[in-house]
Amino acid sequence: MLFKLISPRFFMTAPICDLVHKLSANFSNEQQAFNNPPLYAHITATFRPLAHLAPGSLLLEQSYAIAPNHPYRIRVLKVEIRDNRLMIFSHSILNEERYWGSVNDPERMLTIQENDLQHLEGCDYIVHQDQGNFIGEVEPGCRCLVERKKGIATYVVSKFELSNEGGLRTVDRGHDPITHEQVWGSLGGVFEFERTIDFSQEIPQSWVDTWREV
Amino acid sequence: MLFKLISPRFFMTAPICDLVHKLSANFSNEQQAFNNPPLYAHITATFRPLAHLAPGSLLLEQSYAIAPNHPYRIRVLKVEIRDNRLMIFSHSILNEERYWGSVNDPERMLTIQENDLQHLEGCDYIVHQDQGNFIGEVEPGCRCLVERKKGIATYVVSKFELSNEGGLRTVDRGHDPITHEQVWGSLGGVFEFERTIDFSQEIPQSWVDTWREV
Repeated sequence: MLFKLISPRFFMTAPICDLVHKLSANFSNEQQAFNNPPLYAHITATFRPLAHLAPGSLLLEQSYAIAPNHPYRIRVLKVEIRDNRLMIFSHSILNEERYWGSVNDPERMLTIQENDLQHLEGCDYIVHQDQGNFIGEVEPGCRCLVERKKGIATYVVSKFELSNEGGLRTVDRGHDPITHEQVWGSLGGVFEFERTIDFSQEIPQSWVDTWREV
Repeated sequence: MLFKLISPRFFMTAPICDLVHKLSANFSNEQQAFNNPPLYAHITATFRPLAHLAPGSLLLEQSYAIAPNHPYRIRVLKVEIRDNRLMIFSHSILNEERYWGSVNDPERMLTIQENDLQHLEGCDYIVHQDQGNFIGEVEPGCRCLVERKKGIATYVVSKFELSNEGGLRTVDRGHDPITHEQVWGSLGGVFEFERTIDFSQEIPQSWVDTWREV
């Protein structure tokens, strides 16, 4: 009985390890944009291990494909287990312009320091597994506020699905904090990305070892 | 009294002439895409006079800004007065690939012939004026069918507003022919274009003369 309880963690990949491997890639929705003009912008999302930071640290840049060096969103994500839950913590970067495009420039990327990071309260993802897929949703509470248009705050409802086959689907919608009405985001407008470049080989062995001990 | 009835058409610009002048341009939604990533693809719509064809003939190409030589829609529009209504008739072009990108290549554009054109039944626009703006809507009847996704036909509800100041706003939505439910198109997702290149000087004087006689 004891053997059964202990052994799986030595033989199975820990979910956190699996999630970080599946995320470490460049994703593109080129096919979707091509198939549905002009409803979907052609965008890329690139997640790349920040091997010099804590295990599970990934740089994320999201860009219009037309402007890869001017991401519209740059974040440091930290994939962690907290209170037995798989979580992704989102951080903005101080003076982020310094790092625009660095996800394709590893030397510059590796100069990002922990004290450049600012945790984005209310915008963390809770991740669960469903039939081999990872599904992440911004934590409940309507606290992840962003401004779209002039000065109007909305809270973000955001979800992603990372399939066992490698595809990524995301949906982001903005709601009015008072009425909860949807203010922005498309109707049924899920972005569908294919995995185009694999960066999982950049995950340090030390991270994998840490996750074995979880 | 007779003088009052006749004179305005010699001194005022006929609406059809005004509409063709306002349409003859390149329009870009770059600012909208930049302000709202990733909700709006950066697209261009270019309308350019086909001076060798009938008065009011315009070549239209709509493209992702990233791929100007691969328009996702190319049409010949004919702005006409029919039954006292201002109308825009839409035509596809046979073997349209021959003309992709020609809206930026006048020599090639001027080789488009009338017998290359195929009228798109049910997809014509009825245009009216409201406080100096032109507002066009696809004729009622749910007959303008397009296929999005594999083999699922939807009918298009499409509207544009061309403001007196030169801006263009468009909205396109697809509906199920049976349930009339909205199937594609964004929620509140109006494309907002600015006029970036003027092509109205390419309108032949002979067209303007024709419209004076209407």
